[in-house]
Amino acid sequence: MAQKFITRAEDYSKWYNELVNRADLAEHSDVRGCMVIKPYGYAIWEKMRDILDAKFKETGHQNAYFPLFIPKSYLSKEASHVDGFAKECAVVTHYRLKNAEDGSGLIVDPSAKLEEELIVRPTSETIIWNSYKKWIQSYRDLPILINQWANVVRWEMRTRLFLRTTEFLWQEGHTAHATSKEAISEAEQMLDVYEDFAQNYMSMPVIKGRKTESERFAGAEDTLCIEAMMQDGKALQAGTSHFLGQNFAKAFEVKFTDKEGKLEYVWATSWGVSTRLMGALIMTHSDDEGLVLPPALAPIQVVAIPIYRTEEELTSISEKMKGLALKLKSKNISFKFDDDDQRRPGWKFSEYESKGVPIRLAMGPRDLENGKIEIARRDTKAKEIIDFDGLDSYIEKLLSEIQLNLFQRASEFRSLNTKKIDSYAEFKIEIEKGGFFLAHWDGTAETEAKIKEETQATIRCIALDQEEEEGLCMFSGKPSVGRVIFAKAY
Amino acid sequence: MAQKFITRAEDYSKWYNELVNRADLAEHSDVRGCMVIKPYGYAIWEKMRDILDAKFKETGHQNAYFPLFIPKSYLSKEASHVDGFAKECAVVTHYRLKNAEDGSGLIVDPSAKLEEELIVRPTSETIIWNSYKKWIQSYRDLPILINQWANVVRWEMRTRLFLRTTEFLWQEGHTAHATSKEAISEAEQMLDVYEDFAQNYMSMPVIKGRKTESERFAGAEDTLCIEAMMQDGKALQAGTSHFLGQNFAKAFEVKFTDKEGKLEYVWATSWGVSTRLMGALIMTHSDDEGLVLPPALAPIQVVAIPIYRTEEELTSISEKMKGLALKLKSKNISFKFDDDDQRRPGWKFSEYESKGVPIRLAMGPRDLENGKIEIARRDTKAKEIIDFDGLDSYIEKLLSEIQLNLFQRASEFRSLNTKKIDSYAEFKIEIEKGGFFLAHWDGTAETEAKIKEETQATIRCIALDQEEEEGLCMFSGKPSVGRVIFAKAY
Repeated sequence: MAQKFITRAEDYSKWYNELVNRADLAEHSDVRGCMVIKPYGYAIWEKMRDILDAKFKETGHQNAYFPLFIPKSYLSKEASHVDGFAKECAVVTHYRLKNAEDGSGLIVDPSAKLEEELIVRPTSETIIWNSYKKWIQSYRDLPILINQWANVVRWEMRTRLFLRTTEFLWQEGHTAHATSKEAISEAEQMLDVYEDFAQNYMSMPVIKGRKTESERFAGAEDTLCIEAMMQDGKALQAGTSHFLGQNFAKAFEVKFTDKEGKLEYVWATSWGVSTRLMGALIMTHSDDEGLVLPPALAPIQVVAIPIYRTEEELTSISEKMKGLALKLKSKNISFKFDDDDQRRPGWKFSEYESKGVPIRLAMGPRDLENGKIEIARRDTKAKEIIDFDGLDSYIEKLLSEIQLNLFQRASEFRSLNTKKIDSYAEFKIEIEKGGFFLAHWDGTAETEAKIKEETQATIRCIALDQEEEEGLCMFSGKPSVGRVIFAKAY
Repeated sequence: MAQKFITRAEDYSKWYNELVNRADLAEHSDVRGCMVIKPYGYAIWEKMRDILDAKFKETGHQNAYFPLFIPKSYLSKEASHVDGFAKECAVVTHYRLKNAEDGSGLIVDPSAKLEEELIVRPTSETIIWNSYKKWIQSYRDLPILINQWANVVRWEMRTRLFLRTTEFLWQEGHTAHATSKEAISEAEQMLDVYEDFAQNYMSMPVIKGRKTESERFAGAEDTLCIEAMMQDGKALQAGTSHFLGQNFAKAFEVKFTDKEGKLEYVWATSWGVSTRLMGALIMTHSDDEGLVLPPALAPIQVVAIPIYRTEEELTSISEKMKGLALKLKSKNISFKFDDDDQRRPGWKFSEYESKGVPIRLAMGPRDLENGKIEIARRDTKAKEIIDFDGLDSYIEKLLSEIQLNLFQRASEFRSLNTKKIDSYAEFKIEIEKGGFFLAHWDGTAETEAKIKEETQATIRCIALDQEEEEGLCMFSGKPSVGRVIFAKAY
């Protein structure tokens, strides 16, 4: 009957690829590294976007839109930025095609060569700060609190749907401030917004932390991040918020007159999350039967499937469902009654299970007679028969319970797979099993690089709530003031 | 005091450019032909997008996302499509930059040349139908009703903000159907959605019509459109909906098995509106003082400005405004109380006038004492003093009235500037004054081309409600069955 899918235990990576496919979320396009986000996947992304967008607006940000193309020379203006972003990128060199004279088809018109090549934006700091230069003269023009929803392109050699694609969708906040203090607290505020979103909407526990110098965003003074643990024990960086200091203001000569009439460089932040969050969502909750979605992000929160033999039975069930639909609508709960007669109930059960619909209802003629209905939750797969009366309130409560349960389950998993470790020999063995490792580190980039080379593990972050604890670096034996988080990462 | 701006009568084109700037809607970027959409302009576009998006979903469409890049060879697959779109476009030829060996800076890495060039999408029919090929096997897979919100690039030599830019934002619907009839009615339905949006939200009267063969979308069997008249009498094509027949299905070999088990090519539509609508909105309603916005699209619908000498007066006015804000919020009316003490009331009056805020309130200490408030509407500039009690209901009614008044005013303007014309000699004189001209045409592309060459006027459309009327083509004297609409156009 049901197709046999690979399990997480058998091959986590294949399980992920199959799941993205069977839940109809996305697929590879014929354009190397670019994905097609299918309607069901896009509907989840839209929910993420709308929730985040409302939070950005609540914190005083406005959306705007800047050009897709960045002149090549802009990338060179900020010295460390260019190293990070000017390498693997899509380069537009011409602006016209023409028919080949030999009739062989379309060719690039050599006479339409651009004087300066354009880069398809890998991130927009440079093009945006080039605009801010015109917008900012005085302290009265500050702060500028802008966000952009956009597509960006980073030429990736090895791609995976949602996790690493050449083109992806994201939001990028770019703010300008009169003081360092204000910019730092903006960067911290946006990290809190990301944490709130991850934990309360994605039901995904995250650690707020700071990147080490070698893991910082190219052009940042400080990179804050939220790190999550996937079911295979690997870390996934789910969002970053950068304090950019005056680096971009200096690169683009953006100065303002302060209240005392002095000319100063502007302070900056940038912060972003991307369609990568879809990958994080999948790998936090889903199981061998398919996608598991937290209710806050489920395009369909409740599906009802009628089980019937006669048209009459279907009509009676449909009547009941119409009433329920209205009640759920008034509670803002999205509901689908699937009475498609081309598909059998068993097929539907498995379909909605694959797609992670949080609650499934099933009603047959006997249920109807008894005023009962079967209700199944996707997260625990628990089923029960309950009274049809009061069902809408029951559903409302259950959705909150599922939302919370997913968070708790993921938190417990993370706790179980987070260990303090002091011996590097032990670390080399343990890291292969996955998980987060709290270890002392001497604070040098050399040690960090060597550990990475030998184990592929990186310092995911220095937690913002890191406990002070004197110790010795597990690698070099040099002194350390607290433990940092090591893990292999996506 | 107030800066002197150019009037519409003096120079309509300059007036438009200045208005886009003073209302803070958009600006040219340093990247040739690409614009920066500033927060206030983007907020209007967001409103347009959200309203349209809800209408697309109500009519059964889902959003998805397809790659930004199109392999060059795809463009050649549909014979007439390639002529329309494969000419002026951004061509990605390389995927890496490197530091020049002579230290002169970043250069394109010649070893990173793509085997096949990628085109930045000018429209997505080809890349989408290449996906649909994989999605469609049977009639059970149909219809596919998908929309995409995206950026597109068409290399334009002469650009104007919103009206014609190299990169612009739009939505493109792409649907697949089992029958010609169903596809045609989809194309018609979406034209109705556009008409509804233009008339009831933008307050912009439009004519629904059909393009002549020479004005059709490259690859379409039939192009439906909505045409609006701008204040200078020129036409603006505000949206198009295409019946694509089986052209793209044939180009990409997309067949399905019908209910009888026969293999058939799939039928298609595509339809779109873009940030060009921002230009249409501006040129339909705005006046010499600035932008005029229909309330349905205004980011701020009501602004209140306090007039005070003492802090105490400001506090009392603020108290009143807090109560009003709550009431308006419950009616879903967006409200801003501008108590910025850095700006004088006169400056604020002119600022919100420039930005087209539909209703402006002003309250001073005497108003407060008398329980009165001044209310000014942006469309007619009428001011009156009314009771503060019941103000929220008054505002609600007034917003509807403004919405309707703008539509009526634009409709009257269009009626006044639409004429039947029978003599080509007269037409050549009249067309220079602007307006729509209803004239007989012999139905040939030759006549159409000659009239365009001699007058720059084009056939905007053959109205769907064209009256049958026998006549003689104004140009050739050959018989005609009804009048078509000629105009100069943006």
